[in-house]
Amino acid sequence: MTKAGLKSCHERIKPFIHNTPVLTSRLINTLVDAELYFKCENFQRAGAYKIRGATNAIMQLSEAQQQNGVVTHSSGNFAQALSLAAKSLNIKAYIVMPSNSPQVKKNAVLEYAGEVVECEPTIEARQTTANQIASATGATFIHPSNDPNVILGQGTAALELLQEHPNLDAIFCPVGGGGLIAGTALAATHFSQHCQVYGGEPLEADDAYRSLLSGKIETNITANTIADGLRTQLGSHNFPIIKKHIQQIIRVSENEIIEAMLLIWERMKILIEPSSAVAFAAILKENFKNQKIGVIISGGNVDVNNLPF
Amino acid sequence: MTKAGLKSCHERIKPFIHNTPVLTSRLINTLVDAELYFKCENFQRAGAYKIRGATNAIMQLSEAQQQNGVVTHSSGNFAQALSLAAKSLNIKAYIVMPSNSPQVKKNAVLEYAGEVVECEPTIEARQTTANQIASATGATFIHPSNDPNVILGQGTAALELLQEHPNLDAIFCPVGGGGLIAGTALAATHFSQHCQVYGGEPLEADDAYRSLLSGKIETNITANTIADGLRTQLGSHNFPIIKKHIQQIIRVSENEIIEAMLLIWERMKILIEPSSAVAFAAILKENFKNQKIGVIISGGNVDVNNLPF
Repeated sequence: MTKAGLKSCHERIKPFIHNTPVLTSRLINTLVDAELYFKCENFQRAGAYKIRGATNAIMQLSEAQQQNGVVTHSSGNFAQALSLAAKSLNIKAYIVMPSNSPQVKKNAVLEYAGEVVECEPTIEARQTTANQIASATGATFIHPSNDPNVILGQGTAALELLQEHPNLDAIFCPVGGGGLIAGTALAATHFSQHCQVYGGEPLEADDAYRSLLSGKIETNITANTIADGLRTQLGSHNFPIIKKHIQQIIRVSENEIIEAMLLIWERMKILIEPSSAVAFAAILKENFKNQKIGVIISGGNVDVNNLPF
Repeated sequence: MTKAGLKSCHERIKPFIHNTPVLTSRLINTLVDAELYFKCENFQRAGAYKIRGATNAIMQLSEAQQQNGVVTHSSGNFAQALSLAAKSLNIKAYIVMPSNSPQVKKNAVLEYAGEVVECEPTIEARQTTANQIASATGATFIHPSNDPNVILGQGTAALELLQEHPNLDAIFCPVGGGGLIAGTALAATHFSQHCQVYGGEPLEADDAYRSLLSGKIETNITANTIADGLRTQLGSHNFPIIKKHIQQIIRVSENEIIEAMLLIWERMKILIEPSSAVAFAAILKENFKNQKIGVIISGGNVDVNNLPF
């Protein structure tokens, strides 16, 4: 998790990822009275930043491990990301998905040549099934967010943003499993003078906010948020980094998420998923006047047939 | 309409427009087996390329003319564009809109400080009302597409694309009133070695296709196309340019437009309006294997509450 480690992670995964563009909008800057720089990971391969961590995690395996493939459980962006990363690196990927996952999500994994293994739609069944596959095939389990190599990989989005805009006062990103914000915190610590990292989190799944208050990892009893990527909880690898480096987690309501999402769609003409809108909603909620602020637009995987507006 | 004229037009309007990004997509390139370069005018100010021509037309007026303002009739992107261009240049804009225009379109014009003047929803009423305003106020009438200064301005999108990618084999753009494709033809003629210009047009409003066949400007009796920006007809200033320089106009069905639009939304994560999808649909329809092709994504002004998918 050192500066050199993050730098070499970036060099390692560079050939397999896009250095995504950073967009700005005069209208939005006027609205918030600040300078916003949107790092567009919705344009990333497989539509989200997750490919960064997935690629790094696979590349850090030994050759022998790689021959046996990788396994994860995810119904979201990490499923597609690990599937595509494995395809790019020519190894096998097993993706455990709940049997009630939408067919469109299964198809996305299959398109990238990952093997979908269905399980009962419970947390326990997911982990058990993944463990069974690991035992039977020798595949290495890669956690979507609580893995040091995944965290480093996710940090390269903020690293690229800071390379392009070194004088940011703050970077905002959404908080789900904690991989992205922990990686972002490492990038800001190692590659900026004074850039502070803020998290945006749905009020309906505010486990990270509560974890920072209590000092231990809290869970969500319910997670009725449209930001489907943020229903997960922090882990043992990323929580200590978050506790140490994050300035503040700002919670936003479902309406604030939808309004922020609509604003980006209509004004910036880009598709972003609800989870990405959470970071921008956090900026809209508080006052960051005259600051230069980076925003990680984490992904653009959204069902256009089922929009909240 | 000379090379120098187009170049100086670009220099003139540069401070008032964005040099929009050119995006690519590996997935789409694989799909069409060609290299596509999307010039994203959906990211342009006011959400479409129209600001280019509107700005140039205003700037070519004398100071005395500018003091009396400008007037146009449009219910689409040119209405917003002229309103914003006039605001940037600190002059008055009167926008004649049919009384049945959606309120959201009127609001967009008002937001940029243009004055909306309603008229009966007929072609005659539009022109009559615009003429009355011109007489009463001394405002200069600016046509949305059939004006040499507007045509030059619209050509600067292709000029920028060719500056970034000088070796394009072809550029595709949609054909509505003919301003964009005429300007694009001028840019390709003056600033490329061998780049050919193709138009995409809805089968349901194929007046330009028929005009090239008959050799005179044809009209649409009906124009039941989702590509609302392309329901208009060619004009005396742009038709001769189109006749001389355009390689081919490819017609596409409504389904082909919607499928092309969905493909861009889902794969490229950008909002494009149906008119823009027409150019891409034309590429999908024919075989342009191994060619380097520019595509003018003309605009991104679409009602997200009323999508065709």
